[in-house]
Amino acid sequence: MAMAVGAESQIRQITSATNSLVKVFRRALADGRTRDGWVAIEGPRFVEEALDAKDCAVHSVLITGGAAAQFSEFVTRLPQDAEIAQVPDAIFEALSGTKTPQGIAALVELPRWRLDEVLARAESPIVVACGLQDPGNLGTLVRSAQALGAAALVTLPATVSPFNPKALRSSAGAIFRLPVFAGIDSGDLLARLRRAGTRVIATDAKSGQDATEAALRGRVAILIGQEATGLNDVLRREADLQVKIPIRADADSLNAATAASILLYEAARQRGFVYEQRVVKA
Amino acid sequence: MAMAVGAESQIRQITSATNSLVKVFRRALADGRTRDGWVAIEGPRFVEEALDAKDCAVHSVLITGGAAAQFSEFVTRLPQDAEIAQVPDAIFEALSGTKTPQGIAALVELPRWRLDEVLARAESPIVVACGLQDPGNLGTLVRSAQALGAAALVTLPATVSPFNPKALRSSAGAIFRLPVFAGIDSGDLLARLRRAGTRVIATDAKSGQDATEAALRGRVAILIGQEATGLNDVLRREADLQVKIPIRADADSLNAATAASILLYEAARQRGFVYEQRVVKA
Repeated sequence: MAMAVGAESQIRQITSATNSLVKVFRRALADGRTRDGWVAIEGPRFVEEALDAKDCAVHSVLITGGAAAQFSEFVTRLPQDAEIAQVPDAIFEALSGTKTPQGIAALVELPRWRLDEVLARAESPIVVACGLQDPGNLGTLVRSAQALGAAALVTLPATVSPFNPKALRSSAGAIFRLPVFAGIDSGDLLARLRRAGTRVIATDAKSGQDATEAALRGRVAILIGQEATGLNDVLRREADLQVKIPIRADADSLNAATAASILLYEAARQRGFVYEQRVVKA
Repeated sequence: MAMAVGAESQIRQITSATNSLVKVFRRALADGRTRDGWVAIEGPRFVEEALDAKDCAVHSVLITGGAAAQFSEFVTRLPQDAEIAQVPDAIFEALSGTKTPQGIAALVELPRWRLDEVLARAESPIVVACGLQDPGNLGTLVRSAQALGAAALVTLPATVSPFNPKALRSSAGAIFRLPVFAGIDSGDLLARLRRAGTRVIATDAKSGQDATEAALRGRVAILIGQEATGLNDVLRREADLQVKIPIRADADSLNAATAASILLYEAARQRGFVYEQRVVKA
């Protein structure tokens, strides 16, 4: 076995389903986050993404007995102060949020971004999710936003949480690398965007300027409406520009996350796909 | 009530859960299709999409007692030979595939497209789903393909069915307007594409030409790989061109349906968003 003796000796053995760490994991995997705001994730690929993300801290790892040998490499990569515990398969299965538990879960502290600093530095689009309800959609949007170089993603209060377990899974690790601000009041956000000199762009499937002709360079925030009803009138009126993606006349609309991803692609295209470095404050 | 007397008199009253039409609906709503290949759909919005789609035939409609008055307008729009039945709410709820049943379901016959004719006529991309597993992803892809002017969507055998109930819901009615061919053998398809003079384009997140620089005009087929593993090597080697979407260096990848949608947008952009009319053979 490749496991270092030092690392192996760190592993706590837990056999009780009422153990406090087991309880913390159970609640966190159901809610997506602990009370401290650490995100709860499952599966080796997701844990690896967290370990690879320089600015995230993996605090606790839960491994099943059956999978311990398989994950020994992860254990050696954990920070010194991380808590590692091993539980029987049955306990793990009972707290897992997935149909086919993969035997490893972790609690991860995300970098603490400051919204005004991110807005002041942003050279690529800020994505604003205004009421998206489907966690898979929101997670997909986080994934696209990170991959296509958005500076941050902000959600308004009536939007599904980006830390919802299904949203986290759909984000495919992008949540560790993209500044995300959840539940920001729209009036407050619009004021901050104005202060930062950010142009506000509304997406509108019916009217608006064609995306290819709209100026998506410079400092912009792209507002994405709710899946069924789109963007509300107040937000639409606040926007500096309405943009649409030209689709077939006999088509209804695009999926909200898809439409947002296409606009992010178009914005990146207009910028020559030059993606800025992301600086994290210590 | 706005319901025409003629239409109202057509409505059969069914009170037994073992009635043969109830059984047909139960199986079809679980599988997505009847044995005759008619798709099973639920909800007023979806039924309206089917009625609006000129080339589809709505054969049977099931309405709950509680919702009959609300859907009287649908009934007047049904073809003369359509079967309309009313069932008690409890029976409807038991056969519904959704958490909040909306009291109306229908069986719809799609147009019978012929693959070789569609390929011979295609002036916009053919989308080929090569192993997608998530029905929501595939349905979203159908929706994007229709909206962004693809000529057809083809799935290879190991791909989730485009008629899976969740895929149908995610397609948001696009399934009624886009030629879809399910479970076509890859060797057979590639031969047909060659005969039709179609260039085969593989998507590859790592290598390949940037989408903006790749020639996506003319007759092309875009192959979309499986969510986790991408496109298999055989298909990749068969492609005339490898294309990638330029993303951040520290990003993993885009969601498969998102990546496909962006390529369809890019193809439409290169064609000036000129979408062709779709001709259905009688």
